[in-house]
Amino acid sequence: MEKLYEGKAKIIYSTEDPEILLTHFKDDATAFNAQKRGTITEKGAINCRISSALFQLLENQGLATHYLDQPTPQQMRVKSVTILPLEVVVRNIAAGSLCRETGLEQGTILPFPLVEFYYKKDELGDPILTRDRILILNLASLNQLEQLQTKALAINTHLKTFFSQCGITLVDFKLEFGLDKEGNLLLADEISPDTCRLWDQNEPDPEARVMDKDRFRQDLGKVENAYQQVQTRILSQLQLTTKES
Amino acid sequence: MEKLYEGKAKIIYSTEDPEILLTHFKDDATAFNAQKRGTITEKGAINCRISSALFQLLENQGLATHYLDQPTPQQMRVKSVTILPLEVVVRNIAAGSLCRETGLEQGTILPFPLVEFYYKKDELGDPILTRDRILILNLASLNQLEQLQTKALAINTHLKTFFSQCGITLVDFKLEFGLDKEGNLLLADEISPDTCRLWDQNEPDPEARVMDKDRFRQDLGKVENAYQQVQTRILSQLQLTTKES
Ligand SMILES: Nc1ncnc2c1ncn2[C@@H]1O[C@H](COP(=O)(O)OP(=O)(O)O)[C@@H](O)[C@H]1O
Ligand SMILES: Nc1ncnc2c1ncn2[C@@H]1O[C@H](COP(=O)(O)OP(=O)(O)O)[C@@H](O)[C@H]1O
Ligand SMILES: [Mg+2]
Ligand SMILES: [Mg+2]
Repeated sequence: MEKLYEGKAKIIYSTEDPEILLTHFKDDATAFNAQKRGTITEKGAINCRISSALFQLLENQGLATHYLDQPTPQQMRVKSVTILPLEVVVRNIAAGSLCRETGLEQGTILPFPLVEFYYKKDELGDPILTRDRILILNLASLNQLEQLQTKALAINTHLKTFFSQCGITLVDFKLEFGLDKEGNLLLADEISPDTCRLWDQNEPDPEARVMDKDRFRQDLGKVENAYQQVQTRILSQLQLTTKES
Repeated sequence: MEKLYEGKAKIIYSTEDPEILLTHFKDDATAFNAQKRGTITEKGAINCRISSALFQLLENQGLATHYLDQPTPQQMRVKSVTILPLEVVVRNIAAGSLCRETGLEQGTILPFPLVEFYYKKDELGDPILTRDRILILNLASLNQLEQLQTKALAINTHLKTFFSQCGITLVDFKLEFGLDKEGNLLLADEISPDTCRLWDQNEPDPEARVMDKDRFRQDLGKVENAYQQVQTRILSQLQLTTKES
């Protein structure tokens, strides 16, 4: 087992099988292109557990992901893929850079889910990319772009419904996709409070309702609590669903 | 005649006819969202003359513009329109913010002309907008977006050919469109060395070849000379074309 890459939130190891990787989820937290750094107690295990649960949920809906299993609390075994250098963001409600760049008020419900692409390139500050810029930079083919759009919207539909059952509003989230050696597009990376904006449905206060990394970004406090709460609600809801079926 | 609006480069006056405006082209120059300010001698008259010539050229190709006539050297009479708050940029060669935001090297010839939309909103720093963001902000309808794209590409084809006959490479340019009271989309504002990137075709040196506002932005000197030279070449080429036909 060799360490292949250490990122901001995860370490990637090789395994005996060249087609399988082991990802270790760290407690490290970063924001604003790693200018802000910190630690969130238990984050690694929580994000690993939540990601595993959501990948399994999506697989059950017929959506292909890189997920294999979770051998230890902070580790996930995944299919090795070639990650496209794109962050695919789906937005249901205006927040963050969308508000800063358009003047839309935070909390505005969008008339349709917005699928946006950002360049996964820290040196450039992850700028937004138009479809044409993606084609000119050769970051994805037109066919891949259409697949990404379709998959992102389907994932949004499933996750929005599931989070709503957990009493959580799915405001927006970031996905990464990769190509396996047959050229299939798989959902990869993670889906966690680090990569989603999640608001407590029953909490009207705009600071108190935040259950995601914005608590860390904006120093709202009780970060661990929020992450823990998301995990608890997801796992309870999954148990309920399993019992019912 | 009442002053309706004073912008960074032009003053707009009303006329006796409510459907007609008089635009006065100023010598003032600004860059970087008006953080850099200066004056370019004769710029008003030069940009007014160049814009008039190019609007007439486009009208002759069947493309509707706001242009009526040029009563004095610094003034153009135009049809009054409601300007869409979009800057429509067409790019043939990578330069400026496209390079900064994508890492593409300055001077890269694009595989197809790129039509991009920026939000005409100084407070937000004129950010790039995706098609979906334009629709969500209600800045244009889907049909208007398609018209803008088609018109921008047709204008690019005509201007690229004409500038090439003048020994000038049309790198990129910014257009503004407006709606007349029948809802027709007209090309408006100006087309000048303030709003185009123009490179001398026979000058390989990357600084010496610049014939546009980048000379002012980057303090390359000989700004007036460059603007004058663009005007001279355009007017000579137009005389040639008129004689031939
Ligand atoms: N299945 C996979 N195969 C290969 N690489 C992956 C896979 N899933 C995620 N990755 C990559 O692992 C890296 C480590 O994750 P992370 O720490 O979040 O990195 P970053 O700091 O780039 O966000 C990321 O570059 C991510 O794209
Ligand atoms: N035909 C027209 N009808 C109404 N407004 C116009 C027309 N042509 C241009 N304008 C507007 O006139 C204003 C003055 O021009 P300018 O000095 O370049 O302004 P700015 O500082 O906003 O760039 C701009 O807002 C431009 O959109
Ligand atoms: Mg990451
Ligand atoms: Mg202007």
